[in-house]
Amino acid sequence: MESKELVEKIFANEKRYVSRAISIIETGNSISTELLKEIHKKTGKAYRIGITGPPGAGKSTLTNQIAKFYRKQNKTVGIIAVDPTSPFSGGALLGDRVRMNEIGMDSGVFIRSMATRGSLGGLSKKTIDAADVLDAAGYDYIIFETVGVGQSELDIAKAADTTIVVLVPESGDSIQAMKAGLMEIADFFVLNKSDRPGADTAITAVKTILMLREHSTKSWLPNILKAVASENNGTKEIADEIERHKEFLQTNNLLQEKREENFRARIKEIVELLIRNELWKNQREEKLNEHLKQVVEGGASPYQVAETLFNDYKQGS
Amino acid sequence: MESKELVEKIFANEKRYVSRAISIIETGNSISTELLKEIHKKTGKAYRIGITGPPGAGKSTLTNQIAKFYRKQNKTVGIIAVDPTSPFSGGALLGDRVRMNEIGMDSGVFIRSMATRGSLGGLSKKTIDAADVLDAAGYDYIIFETVGVGQSELDIAKAADTTIVVLVPESGDSIQAMKAGLMEIADFFVLNKSDRPGADTAITAVKTILMLREHSTKSWLPNILKAVASENNGTKEIADEIERHKEFLQTNNLLQEKREENFRARIKEIVELLIRNELWKNQREEKLNEHLKQVVEGGASPYQVAETLFNDYKQGS
Repeated sequence: MESKELVEKIFANEKRYVSRAISIIETGNSISTELLKEIHKKTGKAYRIGITGPPGAGKSTLTNQIAKFYRKQNKTVGIIAVDPTSPFSGGALLGDRVRMNEIGMDSGVFIRSMATRGSLGGLSKKTIDAADVLDAAGYDYIIFETVGVGQSELDIAKAADTTIVVLVPESGDSIQAMKAGLMEIADFFVLNKSDRPGADTAITAVKTILMLREHSTKSWLPNILKAVASENNGTKEIADEIERHKEFLQTNNLLQEKREENFRARIKEIVELLIRNELWKNQREEKLNEHLKQVVEGGASPYQVAETLFNDYKQGS
Repeated sequence: MESKELVEKIFANEKRYVSRAISIIETGNSISTELLKEIHKKTGKAYRIGITGPPGAGKSTLTNQIAKFYRKQNKTVGIIAVDPTSPFSGGALLGDRVRMNEIGMDSGVFIRSMATRGSLGGLSKKTIDAADVLDAAGYDYIIFETVGVGQSELDIAKAADTTIVVLVPESGDSIQAMKAGLMEIADFFVLNKSDRPGADTAITAVKTILMLREHSTKSWLPNILKAVASENNGTKEIADEIERHKEFLQTNNLLQEKREENFRARIKEIVELLIRNELWKNQREEKLNEHLKQVVEGGASPYQVAETLFNDYKQGS
């Protein structure tokens, strides 16, 4: 299929082709770049939500409830679940199956899992590119669901317009979430499974931490909401808080600013990728190999070799 | 102080200057590069051990016990603790104080914490550079102690000659460790706090997982050892296993190969850093800014702008 034809199918939101386009992005060939260039003009209308938190916090269930809530308002939803797949974990597959039964048959919902395995580094770029496809296909909301453990996953959450960090009453998780940098990216928090013991303690802990933070000059103070996603408890409040944050961003002209910052990061990443691809072509990799033995034996330092290769690249050889 | 003078002080293992050199590396100025070039010829003698695992697994205690064990054999030890510091966690500071009381006064031990906060991305490079300083100062063993949550921390552990993943009986942690990619990097495992309930179950779980893995053609099968670090239980067995792995690497000519691979990654990172520094000079950042508004409004795609900037860089403008 011609790239142009595929683009038309995406604009018409033909799911089969939307799915194919994301597969093309995952493989990352040259068609992918062409495709992304062509669909760009139709992007920017979807509102992007990042949902992240420690494993087991109930992010998938929460995502499903939010999606169902939006569907009742006649809004369409694209979900990209970023799954740090391990050959040892079967959880993702099972989760997907449950999920598909619940909302996957709804024509207004598109669900896609993207695995981190073997693609670390390029993952955030590919995930955000995939969101562009859903945006161009006309989905009103795009939800990135990530496990906040790696840098890629954090980058994805940051690329959202509104980022929600999901925690659970077990305080250990909250503390780990903080350490992993989740506190810094939250536009608001959801304490899921808040019917469990320790919920109030956890909320107090998070609030204390939030108060200790330097106050943003932009005057948005992250809230913490209670939820029991498995019982669809708190979903409306979460959707309301997303709306409130969206309005805050729009009123203060911050949505445009935030998106510009995200594009800035993306463009830089693409430029660096183009350079890296050209930089490590066979003959330069060979030059590097020639120097390696010397480096291990102490004859030349990594910095000396790096400078040689850098100058080599700049001279276009 | 002249860089040359500082280098001599490092070679003489004057702790104050070793410490200053690492601070120079942390700030990452041009003296840092000069320094690293000059000390390189004295590096390569230290044996590098990575100790990683989930938070709370007792890595610091274990590191201390191993350090004390080596000290009894009259070997010197440099410890670099990579701490994903958060303004919210006071744990690191407390840990350091306890640690300093125990082994910090020993002139044959050098301890340094390096924080990830605000330096994500550059952290692994700086940590490995700091290890070079300790190596040049003549420490026999260098231990990297990292919390295996981010990519940087994993990169550091991978840069070691022998990598130990520490787990605890609570199976949730083991599963998370697997998901975070820790299973792939372990040369062997230590089940710490193995006097707690569930130890044997955890060992069986890890062994099962190890059996499911594809067998390496290089015939090293990761072991799992029990320990109770707080009671100095299992320390000798761990040191023995490190020795066994070291001999395995040497006998099979893999130590050289492993170090070459690490240097390859380091050199590439340095070249890319040199390019990035030159690439995003003010005038190109300004060009990027000029395009941003257009991108947000859908006029130009990030890929188009990236290609423009890439060509711009290549033409040396």
